[in-house]
Amino acid sequence: MKENGIGPGQVIRRRGDGALEYEHDELTVEEPLEIRIGRKTVATTMRTPGHDDELAAGFLLSEAIIRSGDVIKKFSRPTSARNRENIITVHFPHGMKVKLNSAQRFGTISSSCGLCGKESIDAIRQNFPPIKSTTIRIDIETLLRLPTELRANQSEFARTGGIHAAGIFDFSGQALFVREDIGRHNAVDKAIGRAFLDRKLPLDRHLLMVSGRASFEILQKALAAGIPIVASVSAPSTLAMEFARESNQTLIGFLRPPTFNIYSHVERVVLDQ
Amino acid sequence: MKENGIGPGQVIRRRGDGALEYEHDELTVEEPLEIRIGRKTVATTMRTPGHDDELAAGFLLSEAIIRSGDVIKKFSRPTSARNRENIITVHFPHGMKVKLNSAQRFGTISSSCGLCGKESIDAIRQNFPPIKSTTIRIDIETLLRLPTELRANQSEFARTGGIHAAGIFDFSGQALFVREDIGRHNAVDKAIGRAFLDRKLPLDRHLLMVSGRASFEILQKALAAGIPIVASVSAPSTLAMEFARESNQTLIGFLRPPTFNIYSHVERVVLDQ
Repeated sequence: MKENGIGPGQVIRRRGDGALEYEHDELTVEEPLEIRIGRKTVATTMRTPGHDDELAAGFLLSEAIIRSGDVIKKFSRPTSARNRENIITVHFPHGMKVKLNSAQRFGTISSSCGLCGKESIDAIRQNFPPIKSTTIRIDIETLLRLPTELRANQSEFARTGGIHAAGIFDFSGQALFVREDIGRHNAVDKAIGRAFLDRKLPLDRHLLMVSGRASFEILQKALAAGIPIVASVSAPSTLAMEFARESNQTLIGFLRPPTFNIYSHVERVVLDQ
Repeated sequence: MKENGIGPGQVIRRRGDGALEYEHDELTVEEPLEIRIGRKTVATTMRTPGHDDELAAGFLLSEAIIRSGDVIKKFSRPTSARNRENIITVHFPHGMKVKLNSAQRFGTISSSCGLCGKESIDAIRQNFPPIKSTTIRIDIETLLRLPTELRANQSEFARTGGIHAAGIFDFSGQALFVREDIGRHNAVDKAIGRAFLDRKLPLDRHLLMVSGRASFEILQKALAAGIPIVASVSAPSTLAMEFARESNQTLIGFLRPPTFNIYSHVERVVLDQ
């Protein structure tokens, strides 16, 4: 159906020379996902479809609804709902109790949400223990390679520019998982959710690299997965820095080779090389 | 207090030549804001402090908790709470009924949240009427000036790179309000909240310009304020485009002079010049 001369998938593009043309345009898909436990909706998030099981697992993990020892039995879609591809139900072994706080019982989050499921300010700082200190370190050359590695593993970003990426890398710079989503937090949930489903937690010898900025909630999700280093292409917030310092996490920002900033726990970076 | 050699407000910076130095660093402040109506918490959002009254007003407006005709009597802070600067209470005239849906009665949103207050997928598309068609149009030269105008009105962006901007402009490119926040949606809520408090709604001869991408929720907030054109520096999502087409809103993306894309309702742009 044409709408004022612009068809579906079409866009009017103004070129650099001022010429206007109709073109086909590929946009990032944004659709809601409702995450259910049994018949209960625990969250609704705006996400890029795909890897919904990982997103659900990563969300439940970073909300502390499930812990690394728990087992998800299976995922299912409703058989008859109108939006069945936008609903995913997480199943646990029979008899397993899942404890939800009141916000989670209610079930609202958004595409960039980690606050979700917190009833008030006092409840925001989730109760995950700080990362244990180890002697394992990452060197600068590896750090500087990460943005290129992240981009090399991305698919849609170049086409639309409207999608966030989150990658889990080992300390030699090898990518474990890279996931993309229109929501920053969803990309992280998908990456840690994959690791969780593959029984790879805690990721205590890995780092999380995100294409955008590092908010407090990104650090919180990394902590839930046991990740000691978080690197971001853009800026951290003050709360992210405070959280990283308290959680014994190394926070690296503005990672734009050859430059970067280190905001906390520099002892995990080999500086003297 | 020093933490592994990095003091508060300090950062270790790797320069382009590989040298490492300790520097003072100004980060974007990220703190929670709890929005209350009476004693009831209706939302908690991660925001950059400042313009909290506008943020609260804009949020209530775009959640359809209040409408343009309504009057906010005053805002207040708790007198004794520990985080009093992170709590704002909205007061209405005595006897005025404020209707909350069940998600709003519960009260959870995040720094990039517009979905908040929606219980399920079916409830996401809020019931605001489409923009009325008029003959008023914007020309290309004005459009192309907007990114520069937006930046000229920004304060923190250049310093930290971690903050979003939203500006309301008239069709001659004159800025009405420009607001910044660590959350994309908060920046928009602050801008439309200011307009609401100044009794300037509906903004039917204005456009909204955002520094990031245009999600469905940005379009929804613009519609709540009656704004017919939304322009963004980055990509729109598929749902944003669908929403704009249905709501009779003109959606412009990738506004990076001299180029841009038009995704819907091109009749508001003077192309033949």
